[in-house]
Amino acid sequence: MNEHRQVMTEYLAAFVEELVQAGVKEAVISPGSRSTPIALLMAEHPTLKIYVDVDERSAGFFALGIAKASKRPVVLLCTSGTAAANYFPAVAEANLSQVPLLVLTADRPHELRNVGAPQAMDQVRLFGSHVKDFTDMALPENSTEMLRFAKWHGSKAVDIAMNAPRGPVHLNFPLREPLMPILEPSPFAVTEKKRRHVHIYYTHEVLEDAVIEQITRACAGKRGVFVAGPLDKKAFSPKLVALAEQIGWPILADPLSQLRSYGAMSDVVIDQYDAILKEEMARVALQPEVVIRFGAMPVSKPLMKWLEALEDVMFYVVDPGAAWKDPIKAVTNMIHCDEHFLVGALTAGWQVKTSADWLSTWESLNGKLKTVMDAHMETVTVLDEGKLVYDLRAWIPDKAGLFIGNSMPIRDVDTYFAQVDKQVRMLGNRGANGIDGVVSSALGASLTEQPMYLLIGDLSFYHDMNGLLMAKKYGLNLTIIVVNNNGGGIFSFLPQASDPKYFESLFGTGTDLDFRYTAALYEGDFHEVADWDEFHDALDRAHFHKGLDIIEVKTNRYENVDAHRALWEEMATAIRSELK
Amino acid sequence: MNEHRQVMTEYLAAFVEELVQAGVKEAVISPGSRSTPIALLMAEHPTLKIYVDVDERSAGFFALGIAKASKRPVVLLCTSGTAAANYFPAVAEANLSQVPLLVLTADRPHELRNVGAPQAMDQVRLFGSHVKDFTDMALPENSTEMLRFAKWHGSKAVDIAMNAPRGPVHLNFPLREPLMPILEPSPFAVTEKKRRHVHIYYTHEVLEDAVIEQITRACAGKRGVFVAGPLDKKAFSPKLVALAEQIGWPILADPLSQLRSYGAMSDVVIDQYDAILKEEMARVALQPEVVIRFGAMPVSKPLMKWLEALEDVMFYVVDPGAAWKDPIKAVTNMIHCDEHFLVGALTAGWQVKTSADWLSTWESLNGKLKTVMDAHMETVTVLDEGKLVYDLRAWIPDKAGLFIGNSMPIRDVDTYFAQVDKQVRMLGNRGANGIDGVVSSALGASLTEQPMYLLIGDLSFYHDMNGLLMAKKYGLNLTIIVVNNNGGGIFSFLPQASDPKYFESLFGTGTDLDFRYTAALYEGDFHEVADWDEFHDALDRAHFHKGLDIIEVKTNRYENVDAHRALWEEMATAIRSELK
Repeated sequence: MNEHRQVMTEYLAAFVEELVQAGVKEAVISPGSRSTPIALLMAEHPTLKIYVDVDERSAGFFALGIAKASKRPVVLLCTSGTAAANYFPAVAEANLSQVPLLVLTADRPHELRNVGAPQAMDQVRLFGSHVKDFTDMALPENSTEMLRFAKWHGSKAVDIAMNAPRGPVHLNFPLREPLMPILEPSPFAVTEKKRRHVHIYYTHEVLEDAVIEQITRACAGKRGVFVAGPLDKKAFSPKLVALAEQIGWPILADPLSQLRSYGAMSDVVIDQYDAILKEEMARVALQPEVVIRFGAMPVSKPLMKWLEALEDVMFYVVDPGAAWKDPIKAVTNMIHCDEHFLVGALTAGWQVKTSADWLSTWESLNGKLKTVMDAHMETVTVLDEGKLVYDLRAWIPDKAGLFIGNSMPIRDVDTYFAQVDKQVRMLGNRGANGIDGVVSSALGASLTEQPMYLLIGDLSFYHDMNGLLMAKKYGLNLTIIVVNNNGGGIFSFLPQASDPKYFESLFGTGTDLDFRYTAALYEGDFHEVADWDEFHDALDRAHFHKGLDIIEVKTNRYENVDAHRALWEEMATAIRSELK
Repeated sequence: MNEHRQVMTEYLAAFVEELVQAGVKEAVISPGSRSTPIALLMAEHPTLKIYVDVDERSAGFFALGIAKASKRPVVLLCTSGTAAANYFPAVAEANLSQVPLLVLTADRPHELRNVGAPQAMDQVRLFGSHVKDFTDMALPENSTEMLRFAKWHGSKAVDIAMNAPRGPVHLNFPLREPLMPILEPSPFAVTEKKRRHVHIYYTHEVLEDAVIEQITRACAGKRGVFVAGPLDKKAFSPKLVALAEQIGWPILADPLSQLRSYGAMSDVVIDQYDAILKEEMARVALQPEVVIRFGAMPVSKPLMKWLEALEDVMFYVVDPGAAWKDPIKAVTNMIHCDEHFLVGALTAGWQVKTSADWLSTWESLNGKLKTVMDAHMETVTVLDEGKLVYDLRAWIPDKAGLFIGNSMPIRDVDTYFAQVDKQVRMLGNRGANGIDGVVSSALGASLTEQPMYLLIGDLSFYHDMNGLLMAKKYGLNLTIIVVNNNGGGIFSFLPQASDPKYFESLFGTGTDLDFRYTAALYEGDFHEVADWDEFHDALDRAHFHKGLDIIEVKTNRYENVDAHRALWEEMATAIRSELK
């Protein structure tokens, strides 16, 4: 029995050590029996930081949040059975939003698979097409070959997860009882140098000079726009702004492009395109000859529809890793190249400036709409979802993180969070755009970004309340702004809102939950705000309170639709008067 | 556009109507945009009962609970993206525990799949090997052929889900905008008779007379035992008891076999086998020549180990549907036959009684241990997990339902819930034995069984607190007894408990949550009990309160292990004195 334990310990310790050598710093573990030896070895590892999360669904998103914000591979570990199935939402999101997760599941050995054994289910290829790679590991052995096998898979898993496009990798570990590893002496006591491990050299994609020249020649002097979708690469933003200023093109910048909050201001950054492109007159007047798109698809539907309808346009999609994220099927030129490299190379060779009236039309429309918005906001006295975002933009500290929930919050940030002279890192789960797991993702991200804010709707908040346990347990510092319109606010903007018969029961779906009890359960500070002064006070108090703060802003779904539409109407009027 | 809507309406209404004709009575819907037309048509259907559950994970288990208790196929419906991935734990459990679920997911049409479209992910074969069947449906068309296709798949899905072994079926519906169906006039206004639909004749497996004779001849007069694992077929219990009395065999009855609570008492029902078979002396003395096993594998580990170790035994496994649930690989005779039929046929032909001392040894040991337990319980004054179950057995009303959580509760019920002269339907999620989704499963089951009780540990309760929203929303009547030992009590019985270094952080994992806030959030009555009188009072109060009741019994994990072991030691002594 001790020999079994020794063999198992050496095999699994070799694997765990290799993960760490390859760059893993955090593991999120959910308690279970079959995973015992891996969990204990991770806890015993001298540098690996472990987090224990009872709910595997929240654990998956917590790990995703850490990995997303830190840009490091993060390990998940759970036991056999449905535990692993709870990871599925986070795994699918990681796959679509290119976040490196290493999903380790403990499994019964082959003799207990598919025989009706307790807490056993088919875990082979459990996540189907939603992981980049899957390996059903061998039972522990400590031959030279099998120890190399364990280490080799540790490195390979990290490498595949980290290579563009990043994503989740799943390894399934069959383990036999007894499951207790031998921790005395520590299997990690061997000095690092004695261990063989794989050094991984990450690369990035570049283009030949001749191709750069060809692109420059084709585009220079033309009326072009940059479209920057969700993209989180530090230092990319000022480079793209500099190029845009140099050649006289606007950048239509989704909030998650980081271009609205990179720490400086530039008029080339267009943040009002959602309103602009709702207007037919603008859509026609602003037709480009070239589009160069970075990042994933922006959230704005008017922007997407406009891009989709463009005819006779050269449409470049910059797509390192060949993810082909182009739902409008608009691409004419597909560039698999690192964004940094491309922008640098274009800046060096592209001196011709496009005729100034092209950019100035964009800039003056954009400026005009911001004036309209500023004036509009002066008049808003009731609690309103748009003004909430508008005020948050003014209030949020420099060098903060803002995690943005799906459904309405990301759309409201797109509309109401104009460019700002601060560094605010904006994050969201824009792979599958789910309302699930957002609380946990923000908590995971809060380990990297401080102070951290989460803007979220009430249904999404409810969906992942279990995630708050990590805030309580590890004393994490996060301020959550819950926009509580008691239900699914986004549906009020869709056709079903016009048919009241089943609207509230199927789409409104208010929960009528009093979230002060949620705050009490997880020992967070709760701030219910009745007006804008109280909202600002709550933000101030939360700022000085280290820990969990929940600020609840109650709004009305029906008033909210009217308020959004009223502003759009004011903006439409301004656009028409500007362009006529 | 109206033509598109008309076509979509007719196609989907045909499908929905066919589901209902095939026996579906309930649909559990989670709100979403892409699923709009199916959701609205289900709401519009004159007889289909819909439940709306925001959290798809809980929704999955709520549907599973309804289907498990009602034995009817239940529909799940959600939108595209990670929503469907949240169903995975319930789908995996349904597959292993043979519960008929019809999982309907809305999807983007092909032109928006795998192109980076928002809220889209690969939903084809999303649940892999964990469903019995998958169909990627066609886009709506209203040709005669395609309307037949829609209806045909409605019937086929129900049929496959309901045929032994029952289980989940997944259908994925690509849908194009606009998503609003036409409800005026109602597409269900056509009288039922005018609609063509498939009548399904369910069957059951029987054996030829010659085979029954062969079995009877081989077994009659031998020392045999019946082993009854989880099996929920009404009227089976008294039949098996009658056969056992007739031929003089004991029935080792797992609580989920329903044999301990079928409404009558019989000494042939052995409920103390877990303690009996812990003793080497008993394991040897009670060696059978024949085992006939019904249902899934019982929870008792001593029983499983004993069965596994039997040599030279004829081992019959009764297994309608060929699920081959035999983790100990003990089967020598595999019988694919309806249990009812088999027991009836054996009763008719099997007149020879096994020598009386065989049964009497079992019965006297079993009786002796019950006396030991009764005496032991007299002495227990502190709140103890064993006595809690013992008292619950005495208190629970006749004709009640008891949903039993995994990990410790099911084991404690196995040990402490002896046969009782009441009808208590015992339910549990014993497919993958997960601690997830148990609250929702019990709430779903409460629609069929009233009054309904749930016995659950604190981690499992925490895992599915979101499920409680359905109790609040629909005014469901459920009494939850939370055994709160602040963490994973089962690990205290495993080897890791002996190494304190990482025990609390990795396995104990207490949440320190004050569940009175959970009760407040979901508007349930909360009963914290400090002693046995308060426990009994709380049960009485909950009984007369229609709605959600949460009774919290705080216990200590360390004392609990000692208490269990003390009773086992008393029992071991009794066994040895009885057998020597």
